Amino acid sequence: MAAKQKKAPRPKAETPKGFRDYFGADVAERKAMLDKIAGVYHLYGFEALESSAVETVEALGKFLPDVDRPNEGVFAWQEEDSGWVALRYDLTAPLARVYAQHRNDLPTPYRRYAMGPVWRNEKPGPGRFRQFYQCDADTVGAPTVAADAEICAMLSDVLEVVGIPRGDYQVRVNNRKVLNGVLETMGLADDAQRDAVLRTIDKFDKVGEAGVRELLGKGRLDASGAYIDGVGLSDGQAAPVLAFLTSKGADATKTLQNLRDAIGASQIGAEGVGELETMAELLGAQGYGSDRIEIDPSVVRGLGYYTGPVFEAELTFEILDEKGRPRQFGSVSGGGRYDDLVKRFTGQEVPATGVSIGVDRLLAALRAKGRMGGDTTGPVIVTVMDRDRMGAYQEMVAELRNAGIRAEVYLGNPKNFGNQLKYADKRNSPVAVIQGSDEADRGVVQIKDLILGAKIAQEASLEEWKSQPAQFEIQRSDLVAEVRKILGGGNA
Amino acid sequence: MAAKQKKAPRPKAETPKGFRDYFGADVAERKAMLDKIAGVYHLYGFEALESSAVETVEALGKFLPDVDRPNEGVFAWQEEDSGWVALRYDLTAPLARVYAQHRNDLPTPYRRYAMGPVWRNEKPGPGRFRQFYQCDADTVGAPTVAADAEICAMLSDVLEVVGIPRGDYQVRVNNRKVLNGVLETMGLADDAQRDAVLRTIDKFDKVGEAGVRELLGKGRLDASGAYIDGVGLSDGQAAPVLAFLTSKGADATKTLQNLRDAIGASQIGAEGVGELETMAELLGAQGYGSDRIEIDPSVVRGLGYYTGPVFEAELTFEILDEKGRPRQFGSVSGGGRYDDLVKRFTGQEVPATGVSIGVDRLLAALRAKGRMGGDTTGPVIVTVMDRDRMGAYQEMVAELRNAGIRAEVYLGNPKNFGNQLKYADKRNSPVAVIQGSDEADRGVVQIKDLILGAKIAQEASLEEWKSQPAQFEIQRSDLVAEVRKILGGGNA
Repeated sequence: MAAKQKKAPRPKAETPKGFRDYFGADVAERKAMLDKIAGVYHLYGFEALESSAVETVEALGKFLPDVDRPNEGVFAWQEEDSGWVALRYDLTAPLARVYAQHRNDLPTPYRRYAMGPVWRNEKPGPGRFRQFYQCDADTVGAPTVAADAEICAMLSDVLEVVGIPRGDYQVRVNNRKVLNGVLETMGLADDAQRDAVLRTIDKFDKVGEAGVRELLGKGRLDASGAYIDGVGLSDGQAAPVLAFLTSKGADATKTLQNLRDAIGASQIGAEGVGELETMAELLGAQGYGSDRIEIDPSVVRGLGYYTGPVFEAELTFEILDEKGRPRQFGSVSGGGRYDDLVKRFTGQEVPATGVSIGVDRLLAALRAKGRMGGDTTGPVIVTVMDRDRMGAYQEMVAELRNAGIRAEVYLGNPKNFGNQLKYADKRNSPVAVIQGSDEADRGVVQIKDLILGAKIAQEASLEEWKSQPAQFEIQRSDLVAEVRKILGGGNA
Repeated sequence: MAAKQKKAPRPKAETPKGFRDYFGADVAERKAMLDKIAGVYHLYGFEALESSAVETVEALGKFLPDVDRPNEGVFAWQEEDSGWVALRYDLTAPLARVYAQHRNDLPTPYRRYAMGPVWRNEKPGPGRFRQFYQCDADTVGAPTVAADAEICAMLSDVLEVVGIPRGDYQVRVNNRKVLNGVLETMGLADDAQRDAVLRTIDKFDKVGEAGVRELLGKGRLDASGAYIDGVGLSDGQAAPVLAFLTSKGADATKTLQNLRDAIGASQIGAEGVGELETMAELLGAQGYGSDRIEIDPSVVRGLGYYTGPVFEAELTFEILDEKGRPRQFGSVSGGGRYDDLVKRFTGQEVPATGVSIGVDRLLAALRAKGRMGGDTTGPVIVTVMDRDRMGAYQEMVAELRNAGIRAEVYLGNPKNFGNQLKYADKRNSPVAVIQGSDEADRGVVQIKDLILGAKIAQEASLEEWKSQPAQFEIQRSDLVAEVRKILGGGNA
């Protein structure tokens, strides 16, 4: 009983480290964007899939180490009846599990899209959270590169539909098989050397052509002054890789020719170049020219992971970085073909290709371009002058809502009228409605145009203020019509 | 190295116990319903909130026991940098944390809605999952019952907007303070007796008036033959509770009079009756009559938890249960006023009222009434007769999509044409488009009306089949127009 007396300390009102909440317009804007993306996916015949947020660690492909917990990187815990389970860290691993589990009921090919939160148990940082949205579309069971071309066309459509105009983005396509061909022609000593070359190519984005040349050869002094050992290839051996990375020509025909030169006699390489050529043809037939989708062998992101075509969508306009310097916005989406999606579960190889859109980055891009323009207008506020006449105020909001106008009665303490207007301001309300008993007796209400009011307070001369009052009296019966006039911008 | 040879057993492709996946139409239907609900919430001035799925156990209000894990009922685990964390089990506990954390930035009152998954670590059963959706709206910081009335009006609007017509639902309102008044007049011996009475009232739904009378008195032989001890009250002592539970009259005036009789001289009881009266007035002013929202003191669900008005939405139409017997659909939503939401965190009492909609139950109701009628039509399928002419097929789907028609090229192995039609059938496609090289040379395509085809196959006579062919030839240039005709049902 004595223990009961002792008060527990108050809990802290905080999210766990690396988590955050999203309010009002942030939620609405993301939803609006995802709805548009889902619309494009749907138009292309893709079906929604919402898999469970929790997966068995086994299905996710994480393996129990000797220590008490599975791999870092995921949020995992042990359940008595299910063993180790974890929050999904992406939408691809669950797709593999879902497809393996339900493959007899699903159509082949299976086109599915998924959007939702994923969780990463990584060190949080500025703008780097442990829960964030992904938005994927994948085609499972279609071996043809027509499926890859379709994904690229869809990605292009998605960007335009959400508000990135043509010319402000570029979808770039590369192919892992071409790289394999290049590696074949180089006559590498062993797998270790091959892996070293792959790792070096990955750095192309950072160090450029000259850097890769050095790193494939003797090595390189990096920006920090440290010497990075090279792979030790001769200039002649390294040449095909550099030719590959820089093979983008003035048009697709020229690029494809350069690639053919880079792969030499490799059969797998020729297959890769053929795939790129087919994709360009199919996309061309649908009207997607190189102003939207182009072959670009300098796209190296994911080349190590994917097994065929690889694609990336880059936004090509400039924004100012945190130091005020202009820089290209960069990548907002990537994907490619990965043919061993389901094999872990079934032993069968199932071809798959897909794309993942970086929801937060794309949202940030739309905001940076002022393209979000979500409606952040708050509700019309019916103020409370007279607590006893609450029914009359409720009647007003009901009328406004029935006319489709977002509206509410002020429900805080009505004593201080200034607080009611402050509340309206905080809610970004366009209109306040005011009716005291005097107005009620005369069958009128006061209407305050808060947007015009704010503008007048900032800009207007006394004459303008007089000629264009932000507050005026109307007949009670005209409430809906007059409010609608203000909302429509017609109160000039 | 030897260990590397040993193959790991294949992982099972299964969700963890009690979890499931949602496919296509299920996702789309839920989304359509939630979008409609969000539209009503928005119209009432509520703002979206999406809080993190993971909360500290401390913030959720679960306390660490001596054992290794926090309370059962939640999915919880320990993080090095955050201590014990858990998946949210509802949307109210996170609201309390969010409001306490951000109260200086949020407007007062704060009207917010939230929709999303919650997780319960409970024994799964048929139709009972460990991850499910909730959809809440709450007003924090408004002490007036006008806020409760608003929630009831909004709930009524929500039901009608999603497709439950007036007359098929009833929002019922009760008030905890009235019950407190009744308890006061009974002259109970101590808190234990009071708690016993509260527990008994909770059984009113199950055992009815006679059952509660027995349980308040000497006890009762329940259906299983076990004898349940009673609270031991005299008939006179029990009378006010029974009067309260059965006080619903022909109209609000009569019900309120009955309640006044039941509470005797209790002040808190009078306050509760006054609140119910005010709510009825406010709702009446907005046009919500007792055909939509009524005072009903037999609503006992949640009376123990809430501190003022309590409400529940019940669907009043009958459905057939699993044994084919008709029964009322029952409750789909509940809520009420709870004034100690934030106190745990800040020490300050903050008034709050809100409602939670059972998303899965409401969806089930709409499906039972055939009101979901979601568009389950699949895409138009452009079949592949000639693998080399893929570009021409892609051109067709691009044209169809540009006209806003959902369409795709068949991307499976095109060798067996029957498989393509089986696929179209599985996708519930309305139309298949067919073009072999012969048709291509003549500038035509074949159009197969799959819905009509299925109908004819089932019903039609040979004459009808001849006069109304489900497959016909059109000019290639008329593709969009002809497909649109079929989709519009104009192919008669």
